[in-house]
Order: sequence, then structure tokens, then C-alpha cells
Amino acid sequence: MDQTIIAALRRAAEHRQRFDTSFAAYFDALTDPAGGGALDGLQHGTFPARALELLRDMSLRGGKRLRVAVLYEAATLITDQPAPGLTEAAIGIELLQTHGLVHDDVIDGSAVRRGAPSVPQRYLDEHPEQPRTATGLAVLAGDLAAFLSLRVLAGADLPPERAAAMTAELAGVGATTVLGQFLDLERDFGPVPGLGFLHAVTEYKTTRYSILAPLRLGLLAAGADPAPHDAELRRYATALGIANMLRDDWLDLFGDPAAVGKSVGSDLRSGRRSYAVRALLTADLDPAERALLTAALGDPDGDEETLDRVRAIGRRHGVDRALQADAERHAGDASAIAGTWYDRWRPDPVAFFHHLPAWTVTRDH
Amino acid sequence: MDQTIIAALRRAAEHRQRFDTSFAAYFDALTDPAGGGALDGLQHGTFPARALELLRDMSLRGGKRLRVAVLYEAATLITDQPAPGLTEAAIGIELLQTHGLVHDDVIDGSAVRRGAPSVPQRYLDEHPEQPRTATGLAVLAGDLAAFLSLRVLAGADLPPERAAAMTAELAGVGATTVLGQFLDLERDFGPVPGLGFLHAVTEYKTTRYSILAPLRLGLLAAGADPAPHDAELRRYATALGIANMLRDDWLDLFGDPAAVGKSVGSDLRSGRRSYAVRALLTADLDPAERALLTAALGDPDGDEETLDRVRAIGRRHGVDRALQADAERHAGDASAIAGTWYDRWRPDPVAFFHHLPAWTVTRDH
Repeated sequence: MDQTIIAALRRAAEHRQRFDTSFAAYFDALTDPAGGGALDGLQHGTFPARALELLRDMSLRGGKRLRVAVLYEAATLITDQPAPGLTEAAIGIELLQTHGLVHDDVIDGSAVRRGAPSVPQRYLDEHPEQPRTATGLAVLAGDLAAFLSLRVLAGADLPPERAAAMTAELAGVGATTVLGQFLDLERDFGPVPGLGFLHAVTEYKTTRYSILAPLRLGLLAAGADPAPHDAELRRYATALGIANMLRDDWLDLFGDPAAVGKSVGSDLRSGRRSYAVRALLTADLDPAERALLTAALGDPDGDEETLDRVRAIGRRHGVDRALQADAERHAGDASAIAGTWYDRWRPDPVAFFHHLPAWTVTRDH
Repeated sequence: MDQTIIAALRRAAEHRQRFDTSFAAYFDALTDPAGGGALDGLQHGTFPARALELLRDMSLRGGKRLRVAVLYEAATLITDQPAPGLTEAAIGIELLQTHGLVHDDVIDGSAVRRGAPSVPQRYLDEHPEQPRTATGLAVLAGDLAAFLSLRVLAGADLPPERAAAMTAELAGVGATTVLGQFLDLERDFGPVPGLGFLHAVTEYKTTRYSILAPLRLGLLAAGADPAPHDAELRRYATALGIANMLRDDWLDLFGDPAAVGKSVGSDLRSGRRSYAVRALLTADLDPAERALLTAALGDPDGDEETLDRVRAIGRRHGVDRALQADAERHAGDASAIAGTWYDRWRPDPVAFFHHLPAWTVTRDH
């Protein structure tokens, strides 16, 4: 493999490690009454401190931290010097993610998240006689993560122009992401959604806060104005976001369970109209295939055998190959955009953004 | 009545009227694709735009807008010139209120809010077959209000130092208020809460965002640094907040239903350990009185006759007089603090803050 790519992968791993240390230190400071960053109010009762523990636990069990890598590399496009506010922006983005996941789990009634009980499930376990209160506590825990997300960035010690612009970006993308969550719920109402609608769900629910906002926040932290590059950054983010979601949805249906690390077929069982499920529904199925698919869709008790049959139907109609080809096409579009950045920005991070789309659509988990 | 007081009351009414116009215009701008303030994402599907309609409807049905009056008068302490960011701060604070009310109604399962169906109830009415989705939509609507609250202030056109400081204040008080909501749930768990715990609930759930943050945001908008006055502002807010909540709780038990404008006795029926309910529980009741109170507490079907009996028990033990005396004592403390501000700040708004505690504890709704 090209040395540039190896170096970019190494940096991404370093970003993750450094960030996880900062994230833990952030939570420590919130609960340290002797420090300056303590959160006022935790000293009363037991519920506030417990909520923070659950948020900490869930947040630190985070996955690939791709958002963090995008953010750090975006700052490096401009400068190799430490950019003030970058760590706080990373914490803000990851707390936004925590907020969204907690409320997702409330809305879907999911018991498991990142390989452990979800926050609503923990509250249900702790208050088995008061399920309504347990749900309420989980709603509030998600709310707390949302405000902490903005608080850490708004309170960062950095030039006011930068603080104001970065906080505005984060608050804006927070609102956008909620609109995406509405679209996510709307998608599974009524008939099969159009491809354009799925692209809108991907764009608003995921791409904006996972790719576009980290790109813009990274540039802002490095002292650059992202506005002149906005259209291009958006095109890059949109193409990469669709590629990434197509691969996610492919993995959820056609992935190797051993590699994916969680049960595959969850979109099918929950009735979620993912790209893969939509492709199945719009394929030219015969009546027996359609009956099998219709029965499996939204059946939470669907077994491995049913899933295997659905996969076989998909392969028979070329759904798996078509999805992957679409993912690679969008990844190619994103890569081509980043390829033009070598003229303008520092080569190492450009190489990261140039190769990121290809990694995204070849990952097996 | 003193001319100064009449003038202050007139200004408060003007603040409210001006704010309501601005608040409606803000919502109009969010949905106007031709304007610059449009919220990206509303053009897809129907769920995002519907959520915004419900938030608008609920927000514009707002009550006394006391927070707005405090905010505007606080800016006037410093200057009689228009303060940039003041309107956005007012919208931000009122959207924070909207956020809290929507999630409160989700948590409590309240069907009515401000004399109309609550947001969760509206979603239940619109999706009677999907109660889980309806609750999810209400959770998301509250989330949207939270991010819009920060977005409007972070995106305001004002000097960056001021934008940064004001946004940090709002994000911080958002987190604080969620901690207060945790304490509010914790209060009704287990035995009778101590008075100190009730004061903590009042402080974090209500006072910080309804009084202290508007005070500080008003000073910041006017270009002043609230830090040197912080201890004093906190003492004023805490005393006024307790007085206000004592009066609220008094009205909910002993108020005149015709004046209160909503059913009284809701704290008793919902089992909420308000100041008034706690005072009853800790009074020296005889066994028959205690049995009646215990049966009524948390009984959602409690009738008028039961409520009248509980009120009679309260009056017999002087609970009503003691609560009102406490409220007046805290109001007096707040008023005394504001009385020292004439030396430092502009007299008309000082008169407002000086008299506000007395109005608070004599209002009948």
C-alpha cells in the first residue's frame, strides 16, 4: 500500500486514541467539584449524577470515531499547528451523536447499544416498577447530552469570532439532524419510499453532522473560512454520505455476521426501509419471492433461515451487486472531488479525504 | 399606585406584545424559502414541517412571558438604546421553555398544555394506530426546539464576543435546567423530600432559566459584564424563584379556580411533592386527616369534594398562611437586594426588579 495511505490510516488511529483520552478527561472534569469545569447541579440528589454516568459510559464505548478523524484532518488541511477549539468541537460532535443515539433508543425501544444495555434499558432495569419514569429519565439523559454538546464548544477558550462561528455551526447541524430523524420516521410510513427520499434521510440524519459539520468545524478551528468552499464540501459530503450509508445497509443485509460484529438483518426485521430493503422491494420478484419478503419485513422474530432466503432472493436479482456498485460510484464521485484539493490544501490530509471514500465502501463492519 | 410602578407594568405589557410579534416573525422566517433564515430540511416529506407547526402553535400560545420582561428590563438597566441580540436571546429562552414543556408533557403523559392539546397528544391524535411513533415524534419536536433555541442566538448578527458569551450562557442554563428536571422526577420518589431539596428543584428546574439567565443575558446584550454582580444576581434570582414557586404551589392548592384558569389540585392528584403538598405532609395531622391526605395524594380521579377537604385540613393547620408568609419573606429578600441597585443602574428598570417580587406573590393566576 502507498506510504501516504498508511500514514493517513495511522493518523486516524492516533486521532481516535487522543480523542478518547480527551473525552474521558472532559467527563472527569464535569464531575470534579475542585476543578473549573464542574457541572453545577450534580451535587443534589442522585438522578443528575447517574444520568451523567450513563452518558459517559455510552459515549466512551464509541466506535470508529470517523467524525473525529474527519474533523482533525480538516483542520490539518490548513495547518499542522494545534488548532484551538478542535478538541471541544470533537467532544461537541460526539455528544451530539450520544444525544441522537439515546433518543433513537427511546424512540425505537432498543435494549442494546454498542454491545451493552442502551440508556433507556438501563433505566428500565433500575426502575422496573416505573417504566414511564424510566423512559422520562432516558429522554432527559438525551437532552442533557444535547446541551452539553453546545456548552462544551460555546465555553471553549478560543477567539470569540471562532467560538461564535463554530457554535452556530454545531447548533445549526443539531437542528438539521433532528429534521433528519423526522424523515427517518416518515420513511417507514406508507408505501416504498423513493430513492430521492432515502438520499434526503441520509443527508439530514447522518451526512450533515457526521461529515459536513466536522469538515467545516475543522476548517473554522484552523482559522479558515469554509464559505468559499461550501458547495464543494457539500458535494463531497453528500456523495461520501450516500456511499457510506449504502455500504452500511449492504452490510446489514449481505454482510458477514462474524465481521459485522452485530446481528445482521436488523433493518429487515425492524421494517426499516434501508437502501437494501428498498432495492429488494422494488426488484422484479416473482409472487413467491414477494410473499416471503413481505412476511419477513418487520417481523421481529425472523430467523436465520428466513434471512438466508431473503439474501438469496437479493443475490438472484443482483441486488447485492447493484447496491455495492452504487456505493462505489458515489465513493468515486467523492474521491474525485477531494482529488482536486491537492492544489489548494496540505497533501497529507487531502490524501486522507481522497482515500476515505474507498475505505468506506470496502469496510466489512 | 406609584407612577413608577404603573410605568413598569406598562413596559412589561409592551415587552410581551413586541416579543410575540418577533416570535411569530421568527417562525415565519424559518419556513420562508425565499428568506435568508429558512431552516434547511423542511422541504422534504411532511414530518419536519408538521413538527415546526406544532412548536410554533404551542410557543405562540405562551403565557405571561415573564422571562422576556426580565430579559428586556435587564438590558434597560444599562442602556435605553436597542441592544443587539436581545430579541434573539428572548426567542432562545422561550424556545428553551417550549423544549422543556414538550418533553415534560411526554414524560408526564399530559394531554393538555396552555389550554389546548399538548404536542404529544396532537401526535397521538394524528397517529392513533402508532402510539410509539407518536411519542417518538414528540420527543423529536422537543429536541428541535432545543437546537433552534441555541441556533437563533448563535446565529444572531452581533459582536462575536457578545454572541459567544450569550450562547455559552444559554447552553449552560439549558444543561442546568435538564439537571433540574432530573431532580423534579427524583423529588417524587421515596419519602417526603426535605425543604432544601425542594429549593434545589426550584433553583435548577426553574429559577436559572427563568430569572437568572434572562438577567445575565440582558446585561450581556447591553454590553455589560454580569460577572462582578453575579453573587448578587444569584441571590436575587434564588429568592424570587422560591417566592414565585411557593406562590405557584399555593395557587395550585388554595387558589380560586375561576382566577387560576385551570383546574386546581393538579399537584395533589398527580402526587407531585410541591411546597404545598410537602407542607401538608409534614403538618401535625391527626390519623383521620392523614388517611384522607394519603388517599388523595396521587389519585388522578380525586374529586372536588376531596380537594375541598384537603384544603380545609390545610387551613386548619395554618398551611396556607405559612406558605404565603414564606413566599412573602423570600419576596422581601429579593426586593431588598434590588433596592440597592438604584445607586448603580437606571432607575426605571430597577423599580421593575424592586417591585417584581411583590407582584409575584400577590398574583392570583
